[in-house]
Amino acid sequence: MKATIERATLLRSLAHVQSVVERRNTIPILSNVLIDASAEGGIRLMATDLDLQIVETIEAAVDQPGATTVSAHTLFDIVRKLPEGSQVQLSAAEGKMAINAGRARFSLQTLPRDDFPIIAEGELPTKFELPAATLRQIIDKTRFAISTEETRYYLNGIFFHVSDDAQPVLKAAATDGHRLARVTVQRPEGAEGMPDVIVPRKCVAELRKLLEEVDGTVSVSLSGTKVRFDLGAAILTSKLIDGTFPDYSRVIPTGNDKLLKLDPKSFMEGVDRVSTIASEKTRAVKMALDRDKITLSVTSPENGTASEEVPGHYAAQAFEIGFNARYLMDILHQIDGDLVEVHLADAAAPTLIRENDNAPALYVLMPMRV
Amino acid sequence: MKATIERATLLRSLAHVQSVVERRNTIPILSNVLIDASAEGGIRLMATDLDLQIVETIEAAVDQPGATTVSAHTLFDIVRKLPEGSQVQLSAAEGKMAINAGRARFSLQTLPRDDFPIIAEGELPTKFELPAATLRQIIDKTRFAISTEETRYYLNGIFFHVSDDAQPVLKAAATDGHRLARVTVQRPEGAEGMPDVIVPRKCVAELRKLLEEVDGTVSVSLSGTKVRFDLGAAILTSKLIDGTFPDYSRVIPTGNDKLLKLDPKSFMEGVDRVSTIASEKTRAVKMALDRDKITLSVTSPENGTASEEVPGHYAAQAFEIGFNARYLMDILHQIDGDLVEVHLADAAAPTLIRENDNAPALYVLMPMRV
Repeated sequence: MKATIERATLLRSLAHVQSVVERRNTIPILSNVLIDASAEGGIRLMATDLDLQIVETIEAAVDQPGATTVSAHTLFDIVRKLPEGSQVQLSAAEGKMAINAGRARFSLQTLPRDDFPIIAEGELPTKFELPAATLRQIIDKTRFAISTEETRYYLNGIFFHVSDDAQPVLKAAATDGHRLARVTVQRPEGAEGMPDVIVPRKCVAELRKLLEEVDGTVSVSLSGTKVRFDLGAAILTSKLIDGTFPDYSRVIPTGNDKLLKLDPKSFMEGVDRVSTIASEKTRAVKMALDRDKITLSVTSPENGTASEEVPGHYAAQAFEIGFNARYLMDILHQIDGDLVEVHLADAAAPTLIRENDNAPALYVLMPMRV
Repeated sequence: MKATIERATLLRSLAHVQSVVERRNTIPILSNVLIDASAEGGIRLMATDLDLQIVETIEAAVDQPGATTVSAHTLFDIVRKLPEGSQVQLSAAEGKMAINAGRARFSLQTLPRDDFPIIAEGELPTKFELPAATLRQIIDKTRFAISTEETRYYLNGIFFHVSDDAQPVLKAAATDGHRLARVTVQRPEGAEGMPDVIVPRKCVAELRKLLEEVDGTVSVSLSGTKVRFDLGAAILTSKLIDGTFPDYSRVIPTGNDKLLKLDPKSFMEGVDRVSTIASEKTRAVKMALDRDKITLSVTSPENGTASEEVPGHYAAQAFEIGFNARYLMDILHQIDGDLVEVHLADAAAPTLIRENDNAPALYVLMPMRV
């Protein structure tokens, strides 16, 4: 293998690819990136952690086709430090790959390309397209609610499913048992009959990074066990979480009759301020609701007390309710408009938060005893 | 106590003051900042860790003079989150301090001002002035060499001493046994007869932060046990390290007869690049010197090899020498000009590095066996 690539091109692509590679691997080849220079010109870079695989194709002048694998993080670090604007020459032979650029010469140990594990996609019968912007929105508005508890592995991702409500829709949901986030978009053509799938957290994170640089549409293909996102230059293939996502629709309250409307920005800033003195563990903030008067407060035995009145519209019965400040801010952070609706029932019942009833996103937050 | 302060003023000052306060304290009052509103207007903020003390005076409208102490980090966090441009009202009574700004109300536990420990400066007979720029330079060019080994406590700071060389000078030195950095400046008026002092790392770090915002001169006062830096709005008082700094002048080589001259920037970049594949532990880089040809190289059993030729002037005998790449880069990072002199003897002898023989800074680096 012998090829020459512009440093900036190689660096951008390696940044994506090395991000999939875990820092510690018991199987040595999983630390490596597969570099495949094709006879038609161009180079394919590939990395995997056995659950998630990324393949990226970049422009290169190929003198001699061939493929090898070298440490992804080491190659990334080297290319990062090469002079801007330099041309990087890669050539592999006899268990080594030479990297030459300017006056710098590197030789890295390689492992055979044939040992590199490839995720067999199998049949991916469901195929549809989503605008990159829609996919970004779906991820941003749900991923914060993904559970990090490894024992509840079926919550460690975003749940996608289609449904026929008033119209055919695609729904994405995430929850950790304390809060739930759900985004509903029009069902894209081809998604009908799609199996319910849970896309793992790491795939979501890598996909979101790649989406930062993508306009246009993303092709999604999936079966009940695998999903593939084709973003043009990059293709991300992931195993799906083999589990059953709970029937979350049952926790979305429908009868909450106390409606609070307020500006999400000043609400969030108020919560942030009073929670400064909350104890690290509970982060509990109390909301006292009275006629058009909302008072946030925190009492901490160690630190003292904090309170702030935030303006809002409220006409229902006065009562008090507590929330985890961090969770509340996570949700408010996702409200784009200048009004948020908080639908409350009582101090112990799940609370519904959304921009309005046309908004694609909807959040449910469990209260805390304060 | 009752006073009103502009948020930005209070925030900037608290940022300095809270930085002296340790995160964990067994003595509760050491977590606090002393706030002293004077009858003449203005507020004094003060914090200490018993070894280092900072006092800062800021503008404030004082309605009622008095003093109290509250948690420095909590107050800082609160003020940080208050709306920009707001006026902050502080008022203390009955074991609590109220902080009011806009619609936000806080009440923090206080501890009595009389319990707040003050570092007794005692007599500080040596007094001199140093331009802030000179003090910044002294710190920047030496602090990286300060030892972090707590058992060698006498190396955990910058050593200042005066000496009569060709002319009267003030010298600042730091070493960790592997490298030494020394800066020599003209002896300021008043420093004659100054005792040898070791200024602790934490005082150096806080002083450097404060110097970021200071022009003009800094008044330094010291005895054999305390030092005081008066920066105008802020006064930093520190205990000195009670120990004897080794006679470092003996390790500064004077007979190194092999002179290498090269561009510090391309030298540093070359070292950085080849060291990418060095093992984390040793970080050893080899330099092979030949007539006007310097080859940097690293061989790592795990990763492979790297080499780079850097341009330079060298006319002495060819030989090889190894250095810790991190240490070498730390030094090269401090060379401002476009030429650095490396004075070598042999592969086992201390190497002298400096911009030229007029440069105020001089570095000694111990080689490594490679």
